[in-house]
Amino acid sequence: MKYELFYWPEIQGRGEFVRLALEDAGSSYLDVARESTQQGRLLQELSTEHVFAPPFLRAGKLLLAQTANILHFLGPQLGLAPASDGARAKLHQEQLTIMDWVAEVHDTHHPIASSLYYEDQLPEAKRRAALFRKERLPKFLSYFEAGVAPRRRVTYVELSLFQMLEGLRYAFPRAMRRLERRCPGLVALHDRVRERPRLAAYLASERRLPFNQAGIFRHYPELDR
Amino acid sequence: MKYELFYWPEIQGRGEFVRLALEDAGSSYLDVARESTQQGRLLQELSTEHVFAPPFLRAGKLLLAQTANILHFLGPQLGLAPASDGARAKLHQEQLTIMDWVAEVHDTHHPIASSLYYEDQLPEAKRRAALFRKERLPKFLSYFEAGVAPRRRVTYVELSLFQMLEGLRYAFPRAMRRLERRCPGLVALHDRVRERPRLAAYLASERRLPFNQAGIFRHYPELDR
Repeated sequence: MKYELFYWPEIQGRGEFVRLALEDAGSSYLDVARESTQQGRLLQELSTEHVFAPPFLRAGKLLLAQTANILHFLGPQLGLAPASDGARAKLHQEQLTIMDWVAEVHDTHHPIASSLYYEDQLPEAKRRAALFRKERLPKFLSYFEAGVAPRRRVTYVELSLFQMLEGLRYAFPRAMRRLERRCPGLVALHDRVRERPRLAAYLASERRLPFNQAGIFRHYPELDR
Repeated sequence: MKYELFYWPEIQGRGEFVRLALEDAGSSYLDVARESTQQGRLLQELSTEHVFAPPFLRAGKLLLAQTANILHFLGPQLGLAPASDGARAKLHQEQLTIMDWVAEVHDTHHPIASSLYYEDQLPEAKRRAALFRKERLPKFLSYFEAGVAPRRRVTYVELSLFQMLEGLRYAFPRAMRRLERRCPGLVALHDRVRERPRLAAYLASERRLPFNQAGIFRHYPELDR
């Protein structure tokens, strides 16, 4: 099936979790908003379809939003999830916890509102980020270190955990240098995923956007003291 | 099937979205942490099973966490979701957006960290709540007013939207009096759900915990100015 992915064209963001699955599977997909001939279709479909926020995916007649929901749908089709309902539900549970983690990363730099500039919520961001680094980041890392890192199979959850480590290293390099000593399994998982041929090719291509200060993972040194 | 629900015994919280579905379906379930003979089992299973946070549900051999994931699993079994994969995925998408909304409601009173007292993040809470009332609350309400309120069927999403209106009226009575004029469909949906016999019986029973200042929906007048 030919998929159409709709996401903001200038950032990795939540769309990247879907891209990694499509790329790793060698799937044929159109990254709609990044195609010069398709400008405007993202906003157009966002207004005509009943979607709260990107990313969303068109697969035939189905238009599906919510990152984890998209991956739950794509998983078996891409060979990145088990077939049984029970095992799929457990995997989805893990992905939903990753998405909660992503939301918490976002809120370290936007603790008051997404509609305000970072500079206009800087004191609050410093406070939230400090507690995120101290309490939440270790909790999420140790949860996945114990539950996912020991597995050998690669599903969309492993691809997403690769992305979490990439993003967290960009955003919080100091904190991560310290914390990664406690999660060698996740570091090994990250390295194993990075070596997968199709994923490595994607990461080296122009299709992989660099991290930047507009996405979810942002590097503000003052939030990483 | 006999279900076991695990959730904090003193609050409605996220567990309530699961309770409403089980109660509306007349399902047989054990609310484990509220049974005097089962004290300690919540914390025990939380530590031995690989679960990040409550609520979680035991159904036979399957132990499942993440509220929306539990409802996605239960929906067809309880007659509260359509059978086809596509329609189920769309419904799940709506529930995931409700859970995002719930997280934003929580963060109005805990914008810095769940581990801090409300009083220790009061200025930040006032700022976040003001923007929540002004920007986010109308956005979520109008999204569900347009997409869900016109439907006649009742699924777990309608039950969850009933709960959202209940909670928001408790937490933000002033803001909701103003905003409900713009979402008559959601108000009608709320009233329709409340009249369902099994749900009405549940709401009148002692099994329905009252809202309180420890849950997700809390009434702080200073956050509702």
